[in-house]
Amino acid sequence: MSDLLWKKSGQSGPDEKVMAFLAGDDVKLDRYLLGFDIQASAAHANGLRTIGVLSDEECNQVQGALRAIADDLASGKKELDIRFEDGHSAIEAWLTESLGPLGAKIHTGRSRNDQVAVALRLYLKHQLEMLLRACEAIARALLARAAKEKDIVLPGHTHLQKAMPSSAGLWLAGHAEAFIDNTETAFRIRQCIDASPLGTASGFGINLPLAREQVAQELSFARLVVNPQYAQNARGKVEWLALTALAAATLDLRRFAWDLSLFSSDEFDYLVLAQRYCTGSSIMPNKNNPDVAELLRATHGVVVGAQAELNEVLALPSGYHRDLQATKPPVIRAFTKGLQALDLVPDLVRTFEWKRDKLAKGISPEMFATDETTELAAQGMPFREAYRNIAENLSAVQNRDALETVRKRISPGASGKLMLEVLTARLDELTGIEK
Amino acid sequence: MSDLLWKKSGQSGPDEKVMAFLAGDDVKLDRYLLGFDIQASAAHANGLRTIGVLSDEECNQVQGALRAIADDLASGKKELDIRFEDGHSAIEAWLTESLGPLGAKIHTGRSRNDQVAVALRLYLKHQLEMLLRACEAIARALLARAAKEKDIVLPGHTHLQKAMPSSAGLWLAGHAEAFIDNTETAFRIRQCIDASPLGTASGFGINLPLAREQVAQELSFARLVVNPQYAQNARGKVEWLALTALAAATLDLRRFAWDLSLFSSDEFDYLVLAQRYCTGSSIMPNKNNPDVAELLRATHGVVVGAQAELNEVLALPSGYHRDLQATKPPVIRAFTKGLQALDLVPDLVRTFEWKRDKLAKGISPEMFATDETTELAAQGMPFREAYRNIAENLSAVQNRDALETVRKRISPGASGKLMLEVLTARLDELTGIEK
Amino acid sequence: MSDLLWKKSGQSGPDEKVMAFLAGDDVKLDRYLLGFDIQASAAHANGLRTIGVLSDEECNQVQGALRAIADDLASGKKELDIRFEDGHSAIEAWLTESLGPLGAKIHTGRSRNDQVAVALRLYLKHQLEMLLRACEAIARALLARAAKEKDIVLPGHTHLQKAMPSSAGLWLAGHAEAFIDNTETAFRIRQCIDASPLGTASGFGINLPLAREQVAQELSFARLVVNPQYAQNARGKVEWLALTALAAATLDLRRFAWDLSLFSSDEFDYLVLAQRYCTGSSIMPNKNNPDVAELLRATHGVVVGAQAELNEVLALPSGYHRDLQATKPPVIRAFTKGLQALDLVPDLVRTFEWKRDKLAKGISPEMFATDETTELAAQGMPFREAYRNIAENLSAVQNRDALETVRKRISPGASGKLMLEVLTARLDELTGIEK
Amino acid sequence: MSDLLWKKSGQSGPDEKVMAFLAGDDVKLDRYLLGFDIQASAAHANGLRTIGVLSDEECNQVQGALRAIADDLASGKKELDIRFEDGHSAIEAWLTESLGPLGAKIHTGRSRNDQVAVALRLYLKHQLEMLLRACEAIARALLARAAKEKDIVLPGHTHLQKAMPSSAGLWLAGHAEAFIDNTETAFRIRQCIDASPLGTASGFGINLPLAREQVAQELSFARLVVNPQYAQNARGKVEWLALTALAAATLDLRRFAWDLSLFSSDEFDYLVLAQRYCTGSSIMPNKNNPDVAELLRATHGVVVGAQAELNEVLALPSGYHRDLQATKPPVIRAFTKGLQALDLVPDLVRTFEWKRDKLAKGISPEMFATDETTELAAQGMPFREAYRNIAENLSAVQNRDALETVRKRISPGASGKLMLEVLTARLDELTGIEK
Repeated sequence: MSDLLWKKSGQSGPDEKVMAFLAGDDVKLDRYLLGFDIQASAAHANGLRTIGVLSDEECNQVQGALRAIADDLASGKKELDIRFEDGHSAIEAWLTESLGPLGAKIHTGRSRNDQVAVALRLYLKHQLEMLLRACEAIARALLARAAKEKDIVLPGHTHLQKAMPSSAGLWLAGHAEAFIDNTETAFRIRQCIDASPLGTASGFGINLPLAREQVAQELSFARLVVNPQYAQNARGKVEWLALTALAAATLDLRRFAWDLSLFSSDEFDYLVLAQRYCTGSSIMPNKNNPDVAELLRATHGVVVGAQAELNEVLALPSGYHRDLQATKPPVIRAFTKGLQALDLVPDLVRTFEWKRDKLAKGISPEMFATDETTELAAQGMPFREAYRNIAENLSAVQNRDALETVRKRISPGASGKLMLEVLTARLDELTGIEK
Repeated sequence: MSDLLWKKSGQSGPDEKVMAFLAGDDVKLDRYLLGFDIQASAAHANGLRTIGVLSDEECNQVQGALRAIADDLASGKKELDIRFEDGHSAIEAWLTESLGPLGAKIHTGRSRNDQVAVALRLYLKHQLEMLLRACEAIARALLARAAKEKDIVLPGHTHLQKAMPSSAGLWLAGHAEAFIDNTETAFRIRQCIDASPLGTASGFGINLPLAREQVAQELSFARLVVNPQYAQNARGKVEWLALTALAAATLDLRRFAWDLSLFSSDEFDYLVLAQRYCTGSSIMPNKNNPDVAELLRATHGVVVGAQAELNEVLALPSGYHRDLQATKPPVIRAFTKGLQALDLVPDLVRTFEWKRDKLAKGISPEMFATDETTELAAQGMPFREAYRNIAENLSAVQNRDALETVRKRISPGASGKLMLEVLTARLDELTGIEK
Repeated sequence: MSDLLWKKSGQSGPDEKVMAFLAGDDVKLDRYLLGFDIQASAAHANGLRTIGVLSDEECNQVQGALRAIADDLASGKKELDIRFEDGHSAIEAWLTESLGPLGAKIHTGRSRNDQVAVALRLYLKHQLEMLLRACEAIARALLARAAKEKDIVLPGHTHLQKAMPSSAGLWLAGHAEAFIDNTETAFRIRQCIDASPLGTASGFGINLPLAREQVAQELSFARLVVNPQYAQNARGKVEWLALTALAAATLDLRRFAWDLSLFSSDEFDYLVLAQRYCTGSSIMPNKNNPDVAELLRATHGVVVGAQAELNEVLALPSGYHRDLQATKPPVIRAFTKGLQALDLVPDLVRTFEWKRDKLAKGISPEMFATDETTELAAQGMPFREAYRNIAENLSAVQNRDALETVRKRISPGASGKLMLEVLTARLDELTGIEK
Repeated sequence: MSDLLWKKSGQSGPDEKVMAFLAGDDVKLDRYLLGFDIQASAAHANGLRTIGVLSDEECNQVQGALRAIADDLASGKKELDIRFEDGHSAIEAWLTESLGPLGAKIHTGRSRNDQVAVALRLYLKHQLEMLLRACEAIARALLARAAKEKDIVLPGHTHLQKAMPSSAGLWLAGHAEAFIDNTETAFRIRQCIDASPLGTASGFGINLPLAREQVAQELSFARLVVNPQYAQNARGKVEWLALTALAAATLDLRRFAWDLSLFSSDEFDYLVLAQRYCTGSSIMPNKNNPDVAELLRATHGVVVGAQAELNEVLALPSGYHRDLQATKPPVIRAFTKGLQALDLVPDLVRTFEWKRDKLAKGISPEMFATDETTELAAQGMPFREAYRNIAENLSAVQNRDALETVRKRISPGASGKLMLEVLTARLDELTGIEK
């Protein structure tokens, strides 16, 4: 164990069992944050130079040493392990090892409390950027396929019961719009948390005129978390809020995966997943199971569980409490698992195949009842009267050409008017792509 | 029971026990949605006129009848009760009662599926507007008090342990910034769900060129939910997303209420709540308990429970399922309870009183250790060295004037530089107030 | 508003808005508890007689007055409404109205804290008894049908993919065993909470030698909650624990309802629900939807949400806090809804019909691969070798008689040896029925 | 990658990225289950001998090879890593490596589905045993201290407000009774899940007369999961049920840790934790923080999050789905973390010190009001009248000797009659200790 930053001479400090409880997993999780912590430390050093706590020369040395630490971590020469209480302590220890007393200056005007807060915000902004890109990629894969398959007829369901003829295009574009919405949610949630807590120290600020705005700008934050106490009170809340954007995506992923699972069942048999997304059974030689779709479906639970965990932990009065350390595992676990799952989706979308003969056989005459009812209503018969007439004599509903029928569904967004260009334009705008 | 819209002649239909399970609470909850449903029905009728399904004269009659229904509901002449399967059926029944066959035309081109979806979106937008205003009111009450009490010294804590002298202003402004953030979250989440699903029918659109954009504009939506299937798949997700904004606010309310509860304990004794927020005991004559603060603290649980309930229900394949009806109770319950709680806060903020003598006695010399350490660091001693010197000899830390000390905390946002004008400006911008 | 028990003269007390927040829903919920509260009050009065606080004559008068209150509530002459702060206050007010100073003696040696705690335990024990009986009824309905239908072949699935021929008997008995387990869980959880908190007052006991054991026996509790502080700390925990038993049942109900929904889809088409459990669509004349199965499926969410709500509220230090009042709504809501749902199941089980032609057509030759593999293994070929041989040449798997095949599945519990008598015997033992 | 058990020749199978998603963490988690899997495999082999699938000699060889595998795993010669799809496959692979064709016989009559189900049940029973012992140890530490400190006066609180004089004994015994209840809950929940699923194969049983009862007895199960489908449907439910017992304990741990945190605050200052359970600050030289108590308090969140995750995943129709693999991480994570936390508690209980001078100063005259009121009531004044008299004139409440007062609190369980012998006897009975 490296020296504890705060240990007084003669004090016994926690024993090994206690330290394992306090720090064990946390140090490992700090590996996810360490790059952001180094980046923030560099900006903090520049801020200290601005107010004269570091000279230009000292600041340059610190910057060089931080770059060297980053390089050593990248190359494996250095590793964050349980010799350190946490990643924050490690940075100061490595700097001091390398620079002597100068390294011991880095913590001027900051606390581990704002150090972890800023590293987590940088981490979350990065995760939300990756989430936004993952949602975009899924939406584009679905939109591309929707454009090509707008004329494939698909039996439409509500309540798992056949309802009306629909189209593959409608189904694909529907899932695409979900992920466009999720792109927007990731974008807007990122706006909500895009503020720098660095320079708030342990929750009370400090008796130095820290250059907080400069530091925030260097780190590409849109604004400050102004109030030091709120910088601490927001801990856990920003993680929870970021998870909301992830949960919106995994919620829709769950529904999409459900459709894949259902449509690839033997009884539905509407589509076939690419073989590389399926596995077999240890006992039944005949099985070919859509395991990937099923595990994608299960991903939402990881995010929901993480949010539940955060909510429990955050039942606290103001100020930092060690409980807040417990916010790290759920948030890192959920983003890691969630993004891994979402990244598999575009290829899954591109590679499944419709079983067109089964889709065609899935259409029965009764499914045209609503179109016929609406035609009667358009001709002037009160809708409810038309409905009752047809409902009482369902067997008289005339069979129709299914493709022609779905093409005549011309209400905006329907199978005859998918408005893919509108969806694409919204996605382009959200993701900053000019046409 | 009024006639069921969909019942075929000779069909038995659900018995009373089953109908009680299917519709009982739901009809009561539809009272919260009925006004929005009528509003959307009026816009839908205008849309039907645009495409010629209703004549101008017919449309005028429908509008008049809808206004009369709204009036009768307001005056209590009509009531939504268990004679109806749901609010949607009631509107059609009342229109038909009043207008005959013309009333039976209202359901042309729509389904209860998009009818409830649009009513819920209007309801949620309204709740988010009220939430935004509630958060604004809380933030303004806190900011006003922070400005007045920036020079009241308050013992600052982390880990419930005394840390550094702080100020009432810092504490108040910290809670204010939380609710400014929550104002932004309500604003951004509302942007995410501000789209009209009306005109998507049962999830497949319809064979009519519905004037969906016109209808959406009349209802003040920013855009369409383009895809009919997604209009259904988004059910529950938008409710859950709206609850996120509420949960952010009740999460911070929980922390604020915790502080009030703690600070008004006999041992802390830092503040006294107004008597009207306290109650007594049935057995202990000496008790005066901060019950309101405690029930405010408990409010977050209602919202978290509601989100958990939604997450469970939404594990479904695409399309409408009756399970989705179960999204109504949690979302209506949570917004009703949550807004009721938040509305109590501004007055609670304005009326508690600090016990200044106790605040002053709460400051001990050791609490100046960090300020002294930072001064040494500012004078050139490496921070960690200064820290160790002082830590080893804590009893030597000099007592100081606490007020002067917190005024010297001049890092941006700290007690000596609260930046209330920056916080106020952000709130003004979010709430559309020009200075 | 009736006089508040605790209000001092000259004290202002909560205003109407605050009282609405404090007491509004709570009084209504106390209607569920009032009968148990009266029962416990009667036992408490007997206890006070034992220790001489009430004379025999006084006690008799109190018992008579409590019976009269119970009668008046039953007949509607009395009603618990918002004039009272809560049900506990109402009982004392009614007693005092009826008996004068004698009524004012009833609260000797008790607090509302232990009064509500005991009423809730009695309520929960009653709910668990009803839950146990509901699970038993479901299990018996399923077992009865399993016995009759052990020779109906059903395509067996894993991963929603066809796996092996199975039987209706196996499927029914499987769901039956779930509810037998749930019967046991209800039974064991009830044991865990079967303890009387009455006589612990506000969490510190009292300076009277209360006859707690006698009172507990009169109320049919198995033991005391010994420690007064724990009587308070267990508040919310016992509710949460009771909900666990309910959740186990609704979790299995969700799976059963999922099967019904899936099996009654047009693509599976394995069974038809009784018409009274289905409804139609407002727009699609051809729809017949399994709404009841879907709302049964959604019920688990109510229980999960309630448990989440409790968990949030219970993040507190020791002792009573008003937050604990917030445990009532979720627990009462969940038991009311959950039991209503479970009570519908036995009839639903008895009335659906298999579509035997579709079940038969659902069996394909490949589904016999596992039986053939096992036969080879039984003859001495290493299992994995047999598996590979058959997997490589699936089309060579011989078609078989499906019924004969499932009858040959004779491992204990399998379709050829359902062991219904073992399941029934366990259920009989749990529910106290001698054969 | 070792050969996949189920891969057909020529089939491509999942690529590396997909396998990482499918199997990555799962293999690591199987290390927690592998010992139980080997134990169950040995029992399964004995069962196969009983029905003649293995000869005595073959069975002996398999038992020897399984013991060798266990030894190699213990010594590190073998390791479960990502070359294997899962632990179940690894056992078969190692056996086949060691025994050739005989190893390939082990999977006769079983599937990975029942293999993982039985390993998980054995794991859960073991965790519940450790939980039971952890709760017992905590309860005994608390009871021992309660006996010694029954005469230390402690200010008693409700609503965080001072209520009545209480005692350290009462407070300690209250927490002890919580953990005695938790001991019972662990015991009863274990009864609920104490059933063997081994021999149910993939959910349909098998065409062999497996010796399931013999195998279950060898593995010390109390009974069979009779029905093969239910063996699959119970997956996740038993994990969730086991977590309930853990959650009951961590819920009470949260409350106990809250008390420690509060009582060790500077304002309360009622107790001091042993130094080895505290840490310092990186910036504030004066801090000494009760970090261990805070992280213990946060532990409940891990369990609640795990239960939420399970609930989400289990929204499925009958039969095995790959989603169920996602039940492993939360359950293993929660038990590992939860037991680690609980194991720290007995020493924490034994080592904190009361600050007796502060406890004594914490008693004020008003706190005797309830005792005085009860005395008046015992002398015949109606309780409510006595209450009002004293409430109106609180300053007249006479000061008393606090210790004498708490000793006079003789209602069963109160500070004057703690009934520690009753609590101890119940714990002894639950844990099988004869006096």
